Amino acid sequence: MTSTLVTGIAELVTHDPSLGDDPLGIVTDAALVVDAGRVAWVGPAVQAPDADARVDVEGRAVVPGFVDSHSHLVFAGDRSAEFAARMTGEPYDGGGIAVSVAATRAASDEELRALLARRVAEMRAQGTTTVEVKSGYGLTVEDETRALRLAAEVTPETTFLGAHVVPPEMREDRSAYVDLVCGDMLGAAVPHARWIDVFCEPHSPHAFTEEESRRILTAGRDAGLLLRVHGNQLGPGPGVRLAVELGAASVDHCTYLDDADVEALAGSDTVATLLPGVEFSTRSPYPDARRLLDAGVAVAIASDCNPGTCYSSSIPLAISLAVREMGMTPAEALQAATLGSARALRRDDVGHLAVGARADLTVLDAPSYLHIPYRVGVPLARALDLGLTPTPTPS
Amino acid sequence: MTSTLVTGIAELVTHDPSLGDDPLGIVTDAALVVDAGRVAWVGPAVQAPDADARVDVEGRAVVPGFVDSHSHLVFAGDRSAEFAARMTGEPYDGGGIAVSVAATRAASDEELRALLARRVAEMRAQGTTTVEVKSGYGLTVEDETRALRLAAEVTPETTFLGAHVVPPEMREDRSAYVDLVCGDMLGAAVPHARWIDVFCEPHSPHAFTEEESRRILTAGRDAGLLLRVHGNQLGPGPGVRLAVELGAASVDHCTYLDDADVEALAGSDTVATLLPGVEFSTRSPYPDARRLLDAGVAVAIASDCNPGTCYSSSIPLAISLAVREMGMTPAEALQAATLGSARALRRDDVGHLAVGARADLTVLDAPSYLHIPYRVGVPLARALDLGLTPTPTPS
Ligand SMILES: [Zn+2]
Ligand SMILES: [Zn+2]
Repeated sequence: MTSTLVTGIAELVTHDPSLGDDPLGIVTDAALVVDAGRVAWVGPAVQAPDADARVDVEGRAVVPGFVDSHSHLVFAGDRSAEFAARMTGEPYDGGGIAVSVAATRAASDEELRALLARRVAEMRAQGTTTVEVKSGYGLTVEDETRALRLAAEVTPETTFLGAHVVPPEMREDRSAYVDLVCGDMLGAAVPHARWIDVFCEPHSPHAFTEEESRRILTAGRDAGLLLRVHGNQLGPGPGVRLAVELGAASVDHCTYLDDADVEALAGSDTVATLLPGVEFSTRSPYPDARRLLDAGVAVAIASDCNPGTCYSSSIPLAISLAVREMGMTPAEALQAATLGSARALRRDDVGHLAVGARADLTVLDAPSYLHIPYRVGVPLARALDLGLTPTPTPS
Repeated sequence: MTSTLVTGIAELVTHDPSLGDDPLGIVTDAALVVDAGRVAWVGPAVQAPDADARVDVEGRAVVPGFVDSHSHLVFAGDRSAEFAARMTGEPYDGGGIAVSVAATRAASDEELRALLARRVAEMRAQGTTTVEVKSGYGLTVEDETRALRLAAEVTPETTFLGAHVVPPEMREDRSAYVDLVCGDMLGAAVPHARWIDVFCEPHSPHAFTEEESRRILTAGRDAGLLLRVHGNQLGPGPGVRLAVELGAASVDHCTYLDDADVEALAGSDTVATLLPGVEFSTRSPYPDARRLLDAGVAVAIASDCNPGTCYSSSIPLAISLAVREMGMTPAEALQAATLGSARALRRDDVGHLAVGARADLTVLDAPSYLHIPYRVGVPLARALDLGLTPTPTPS
């Protein structure tokens, strides 16, 4: 095993409060040593120790690799025409998911594997080094299991989302589908999944009610899975309070919150994960991150990359939208997309660059992280390739 | 001279109404022949003629290279901290331009040339094949001339913007600065410039009044330059009507328009160039493109890439914002960023891919142009490198 010294870092964001005198733990004119895939040393370049190899980033900024804690990457088919129609005024009610379900079921393993690999590579090319991937376009025992099996080939953060929507062929008998999700489908999913999630949304006829969601999440927890929830996306609803009640790691969307929701989140270990690309792509009002932060809620930002409501895999865009539309400072937005989203995955080895963290480094073609929102839309970020081995599965 | 056959085009947007049955002149499963830097043939791949060389874009979409008809690329210095401050509530009044002026004056020719080359390359890497570049951070005879000389090394679309703001050292005597702009500065600029522009904005204390703007534009026209105007950005104002009165090719921003402005534009040859990246980066209300289109106004979209109000060079982002925020369809937004912005530069050789056009091809990592806004923030577009010679200067 060789160590690598990364030099030429104009600005290094570590999120280690013991380094630098600001909340991001910024070191300027910095260097960093990687050993055995971990950060072994961080400090001013002039104090850098020797190492076996050396990488010069030539005056660029380095930030913790983005942690995308919410994505739906296992799907086939093209829904760009649906997007264009929505932009001329058609509303979103979750119904289009059936289109992706049909195309995904029809695709071969090889097709899905290639699509997934391409999407993960696209994310990495934009600076994302940890990604959560959900199932949810299979909606049969066999197709959900396949999606999770393929997802587990690219990430340890796999989420069983059989409760994405009730599939078209079972809409006459919802309760039979909930039984299936809690029974055979869950049983088949467990060996390939770390998480279980549910689309708890009274404003979509095909999503799940509070009682259905509680049943599904409880079954998942009893089977050993950790919990996450899609909640409060299309209107006020029970998702946030249910997530807190059950101790979910994260409740995602949080677009429509009342005071009781905010209070529940503030007194909990549940992260509020905001997905501003969805509001962009569905022309919906943005969630109020400022309100959450001011209340002391832990906030994450993720992409929700999916074919229906947001086919953007860009975390830099999500950061820019958080700053423009959600009342976050650039520093808060960067933290939410790294440290915050790591917390939403209950990971402490990623999302920061303190000594001991995974050496997931994202380089910016810019001298400061401020350029991420300042230069909105410009592809500045990429994961630094140090020739390391792939992410191991957390135990 | 060799001809090149471009194959594997899933969707080719030509803007030639004689091809395909929609307004974009779309040909699916298309091919295109380039000869002597021009489009020599366009049609279905199965009918493609032979050529000396062949490029396969492997199932991607091809659109006309983006025409960015408004940018300020000749500057030095970093204003990211000003952006971050503005995002926490500080207003924009044009005052920060002085920061870029000081840094630009202090930079060497070599520094400015390298910064400019890097920015043009960044644009090309995002699909922009024609760019207009303004001066306006020199504001002395020598520094404005230098900026235009450097700009002319990278584009024929150079614009003299001595009337960007009154420089700090002349604010006690505005009229002397207007005299200078219309006199010695204009004389020195003319050999390097195709256009003259003015920041006509009563809401900024350092920009120019209607009367000052009329005097400057008229002087430029008399000296042989074509006209463009920054107008109606920060509030209602005289810019749009002045642009129409003087026959300017374009009036840019158009954020605040009254009915008389829209009527004047509709009855003119002046293009309304919208710069939604500015509204994004200054958290201002977006211009209403729908209103302009419905009134029959010719609309363009450009970046306004500049260090103060929008340091984004991304035309795909501008297209996405136009669809999300300005009421344009994806087709209208693409047209505005190609055909529309070519018209704003009075160019008929770029912005489309009919036979005879310049072979400026932009390839998308996607099967359709719809993916530009559908996949907002993802770097899908790049200029196709066919190994051709650089853009010649229009006569
Ligand atoms: Zn989701
Ligand atoms: Zn401008």
